[in-house]
Amino acid sequence: MSRKIALDRPLLQENIHHAGRIRALLERHRVTAFNLVSSPGSGKTSLLERTLKALAGKLNMALIAGDVSTQNDADRLKAAGGQWVRPLETGGTCHLEAAMLSGTVAQLDLPATDILFIENVGNLVCPAAYDLGEHEKIVLISTVEGDDKPLKYPVMFRNASVMVINKIDLLGLTEFSLATVKENAFLINPDLRVFELSCRTGEGLSAWFDWLQQRVARVRGTESGHG
Amino acid sequence: MSRKIALDRPLLQENIHHAGRIRALLERHRVTAFNLVSSPGSGKTSLLERTLKALAGKLNMALIAGDVSTQNDADRLKAAGGQWVRPLETGGTCHLEAAMLSGTVAQLDLPATDILFIENVGNLVCPAAYDLGEHEKIVLISTVEGDDKPLKYPVMFRNASVMVINKIDLLGLTEFSLATVKENAFLINPDLRVFELSCRTGEGLSAWFDWLQQRVARVRGTESGHG
Repeated sequence: MSRKIALDRPLLQENIHHAGRIRALLERHRVTAFNLVSSPGSGKTSLLERTLKALAGKLNMALIAGDVSTQNDADRLKAAGGQWVRPLETGGTCHLEAAMLSGTVAQLDLPATDILFIENVGNLVCPAAYDLGEHEKIVLISTVEGDDKPLKYPVMFRNASVMVINKIDLLGLTEFSLATVKENAFLINPDLRVFELSCRTGEGLSAWFDWLQQRVARVRGTESGHG
Repeated sequence: MSRKIALDRPLLQENIHHAGRIRALLERHRVTAFNLVSSPGSGKTSLLERTLKALAGKLNMALIAGDVSTQNDADRLKAAGGQWVRPLETGGTCHLEAAMLSGTVAQLDLPATDILFIENVGNLVCPAAYDLGEHEKIVLISTVEGDDKPLKYPVMFRNASVMVINKIDLLGLTEFSLATVKENAFLINPDLRVFELSCRTGEGLSAWFDWLQQRVARVRGTESGHG
């Protein structure tokens, strides 16, 4: 195990360097960046589809869709009206690294961009270790995955600032308990902001949309309320 | 990317060496080994709980439960009647490696064991690359994860010989199509054996139990039917 950590250290140090450059570039243009992480199938792409449709005309959103070996998610997101969607295939790697993003971020029209969404590879372990220069890491969990997941994948829930609990329309059909998953998540990270929603029925989405707009207003310096 | 592959190569070569030793040891004692892989929350532990309960008294089953940082799964499986359950924490690593298993496998009562189940870390990417000396790699997917997953995580579905589709009791509640997931999986791996079941309701489990018993009989040389 110590051998593996030694091998990874130069990669992680290089990643911190690249992430810092991306963060500086985004801050210069007052772009708010979100790094979405979850298991495969928790609903990252569905949440982004909903968000692109709901906030089109209100916010300018760019999106980088990471995937191991297809561009399926990027295609779905373009179909949802995302004009500024860029696919990013990792070629087998289990996570995004900041260096993979640098070129794509630099090509975006940053002065005109309010939000950059980065959809990471579906994986609750490896993406936890790689800062991509984002302002917030958002972890999704669905109500059919088991309410013990924050305890089993603690690094991801510790490094995230927001937890989105998706598929609440399926509550009651499995043994998943909302109270238990939140209790487990707060054990790992008491500061997590939580959204409970269903991308399928739309329940709970308005709170998520409101928060995104407040979050952008804070960075843009156009905040009117309390955020 | 090429840099990463170069870093991983010695690890993978060392893993092949350890996996070969484990496979030879298991074959000497005619133990059938299964490596269970899936996303977090697809139901690996639930399937093993059901299997331990159903086949107790018919087969002697040992089980190594891999986890990033808890022994929760091992505790659940012991509670399900698994006397020979061994937890294996990876200490943060995103997959099991053969070297992590060697000591534990050597301590099992192999002459008395029919089946060794290895429950891998919940991750559809990294465990695909690591042979653990198993006879079959079994990939689980649940009906709430999205039917595109075989295309998005092709290495895992290519290296598996069996695909278990779990949570069929939730079919119809999401956009998941059984026909589509099988079509996508067969594009990647036409030889996949498929089980469709629900660990919650028990539907479809008998075919899985029958196959396990036939699989063991073949290795034990006590086969009576066609298997």
